[in-house]
Amino acid sequence: MAKNITTREQDYSQWYVDVVREAKLADYSPVKGCMVIRPNGYAIWEKMQQALDKMFKETGHVNAYFPLFIPQSFLEKEAQHVEGFALECALVTHSGLERVEGESRLRPTGKLDEPLVIRPTSETIIWAMYKNWIQSYRDLPLLINQWANVVRWEMRTRLFLRTTEFLWQEGHTAHATANEAEAEARRMLEVYRTFAEEYMAMPVIAGLKSEGQKFPGAVHTYTIEAMMQDKKALQAGTSHNLGQNFAKAFDVTFQNERNELEYVYATSWGVSTRLVGALVMTHGDDDGIIVPPRLATWPVYAVPIYRNPEEKAAVMGVLEPLLADLKTHGIGYRLDDRDQMTPGFKFAEGELMGHPLRLEIGPKDVAKDQVVFVKRHNREKVAIPAREVTRELPKLLDSIQNELYERAKRFSDQHTKPLDTYEELQRAMEEDSGFVLCHWAGNQEEENRVQEETKATLRVIPLDGPHEAGKCILTGKPSSQRVVFAKAY
Amino acid sequence: MAKNITTREQDYSQWYVDVVREAKLADYSPVKGCMVIRPNGYAIWEKMQQALDKMFKETGHVNAYFPLFIPQSFLEKEAQHVEGFALECALVTHSGLERVEGESRLRPTGKLDEPLVIRPTSETIIWAMYKNWIQSYRDLPLLINQWANVVRWEMRTRLFLRTTEFLWQEGHTAHATANEAEAEARRMLEVYRTFAEEYMAMPVIAGLKSEGQKFPGAVHTYTIEAMMQDKKALQAGTSHNLGQNFAKAFDVTFQNERNELEYVYATSWGVSTRLVGALVMTHGDDDGIIVPPRLATWPVYAVPIYRNPEEKAAVMGVLEPLLADLKTHGIGYRLDDRDQMTPGFKFAEGELMGHPLRLEIGPKDVAKDQVVFVKRHNREKVAIPAREVTRELPKLLDSIQNELYERAKRFSDQHTKPLDTYEELQRAMEEDSGFVLCHWAGNQEEENRVQEETKATLRVIPLDGPHEAGKCILTGKPSSQRVVFAKAY
Repeated sequence: MAKNITTREQDYSQWYVDVVREAKLADYSPVKGCMVIRPNGYAIWEKMQQALDKMFKETGHVNAYFPLFIPQSFLEKEAQHVEGFALECALVTHSGLERVEGESRLRPTGKLDEPLVIRPTSETIIWAMYKNWIQSYRDLPLLINQWANVVRWEMRTRLFLRTTEFLWQEGHTAHATANEAEAEARRMLEVYRTFAEEYMAMPVIAGLKSEGQKFPGAVHTYTIEAMMQDKKALQAGTSHNLGQNFAKAFDVTFQNERNELEYVYATSWGVSTRLVGALVMTHGDDDGIIVPPRLATWPVYAVPIYRNPEEKAAVMGVLEPLLADLKTHGIGYRLDDRDQMTPGFKFAEGELMGHPLRLEIGPKDVAKDQVVFVKRHNREKVAIPAREVTRELPKLLDSIQNELYERAKRFSDQHTKPLDTYEELQRAMEEDSGFVLCHWAGNQEEENRVQEETKATLRVIPLDGPHEAGKCILTGKPSSQRVVFAKAY
Repeated sequence: MAKNITTREQDYSQWYVDVVREAKLADYSPVKGCMVIRPNGYAIWEKMQQALDKMFKETGHVNAYFPLFIPQSFLEKEAQHVEGFALECALVTHSGLERVEGESRLRPTGKLDEPLVIRPTSETIIWAMYKNWIQSYRDLPLLINQWANVVRWEMRTRLFLRTTEFLWQEGHTAHATANEAEAEARRMLEVYRTFAEEYMAMPVIAGLKSEGQKFPGAVHTYTIEAMMQDKKALQAGTSHNLGQNFAKAFDVTFQNERNELEYVYATSWGVSTRLVGALVMTHGDDDGIIVPPRLATWPVYAVPIYRNPEEKAAVMGVLEPLLADLKTHGIGYRLDDRDQMTPGFKFAEGELMGHPLRLEIGPKDVAKDQVVFVKRHNREKVAIPAREVTRELPKLLDSIQNELYERAKRFSDQHTKPLDTYEELQRAMEEDSGFVLCHWAGNQEEENRVQEETKATLRVIPLDGPHEAGKCILTGKPSSQRVVFAKAY
């Protein structure tokens, strides 16, 4: 166990904060609720961005950038939307600072006529622009994504998972028909599911949010939900079918193929830096974080082992050309050749930082013309002839990627149980036993009651779940499929 | 000449706004001073980001992300810095909106104890964090870059060139010695010069800013300055040696190798979305923008030409496999196969959007088994056998990249003149004749006088300029090299 890290068993919340800070993923900032994403954490986010951006472009989207500031009046145009965000939006009210006469301190000056909201999400400013850009069905679909920072004032914050400012992408698309918008919302949900499972090695349940949990202004909201190691759910990405709500709020109409004026159909969808936290909580252990190979900027952490200059020369004589070869093949590595640290210290540091593979090479390995790899997640050792490393490494990394997914999937499956009574649900939540699959036909008030009594929320109505007749665990009303209840982040 | 575009000769300023809007690079937003970067403009910025980010990483830098918000008190800690930015910073004073009783409108609520400044630049928040991260010389150098949005309240704005919010990168590095910091500031200036010349095909003059023009808080500022087609200068990137100013303001010390406590040495450096404007003004013509091949997401604009379904089938039969081959080779293209538009309309649109090459193929070309390429910048036509396109295209694109640079360099050289008297400088500025190289030994007040009398500012003290003895054109004092005066954006 790494020092300075609380074990997961002792205190899972504290373990999370400890690994995030010790692995230098993020730090608290002097501004309440805001975090600093340090280079190790940002490197993970960059890899996430690259993979997602490629998937967005392959599905026909282009990037753009809309203003940080939204006139307060815009936010008010969509009724549910403003209710959802009014209490947590930061407001810019002045445009400069002036010196207080006779004092050294400064005070705001240049009061604005209308306060500006810092975007909590960009539907309103984007639909105000779409009004100018869309006239005819020939202008549709409009498939735009934006990588940006957003601000939602939070009282209780947690690094990556919930911060006042966070980074995200937000897709905003415009369509000529309701069906197209629905297909887009579903398509992007699948992009998120694929990304979570194939890049993050994080199994998710994809499906619908209940009416009470949907996005303010949406017709309905799709979500992917993942189980963290404390068996709580984490909402990892959402995709909304917004219907004509924003088009009506901003009067965005188009001439359809029958020459009629019609309101435009919309979607929006987003994932955020919260995913870095999800990655930590899905794979990390008491020694640090674990980065799946496909999201690792430096999948290999290379530690040369020697006791004297002669051994060093022999070891580096093999290691250096090998690393040069990795570079040629686009495989990232970090070489830890600090003379003042012991190999043991370096091993612990490499594990803390989550490099999926450690490369060890000492004089004995040189004698055998081999290199030893140690898998971060299970300490399995694999000796590989030096000349075969470049060929074998991609396979080894693929196997780790799969093993991480399978391990997380097993954990998630083990802690997902079908239950048929409300008492069982209550007991499951008391025991923190994970996801509960149960029949449900309650309304928003009844959902709230479950939350008050058990702390569980309706996370998702699975898309892939079997349709089976049953009775709502709370109301006894007939239900056609099971939904997921769980405690959540 | 494209319709809706004022010619450069008629009105250069209006030409610029027209091409930016007609080519759909950017649009005005409903928020005063803020712009929307549309997909065509953002695609250029993305290519710029990719190239720069690669160069930053190759020089040892990593990315991170620091908060958007800066406590007002932080900005006040460095005296010159706050003077430089106080009058143009946006202030967040409230954290929510509440409904005014009995009315439908909302008003700000949740007044903050201390107003938060939206970063105009991030030295202060970053050095507040560096204080926690730097203890020993072993923690140095710290080489961090951030891609972010910043806000500087502007009264007179111009798309891309000067907007209240803009996107940029800001490097912030920490070093153990003054020499290292100076070397870093110079290294990043060279990165910017290389980027401007090799990617943007935009010749620049690299050098020092005068005392009066340096960054608020810097020891000295390096700059690259480019000549636009109206012969005005545009500051395209700056790199600052900050000395120990910010370390002292934020009390950031480290234990040096001699076990002494010492203040850390700093640099910062940045380029912004202003470069998209610079690109437009360097290469664009009366028909639209011109994107250099190395920054073009879609270097090829493909227009199939046919009059009936048989011809279409024949043309597409050659074009489609050819485009598939380009895709395989990673060469981007846009296929304009809209049936309702004429080839002439498409040619004009492709020119407006600045694709460096147009691909034309009609029945006659099919008969000759060839494809015709037309270079955007000089209309030169090149016929290439269909099967050789994939091999020849990279060479053709390279030649365009070079031709664009050479053309811009000729223009810049033609309008850069050594002058030896103040009267000549005055006349040159009246005639808008470009850059003036003259001897200078004046102080800040004398610089201001030149600006008042001629509208010219001292743009840059060139690093590469020959050292030669001369007399300051204003004061007659001895000078050891010529500097550049010009009107500027």
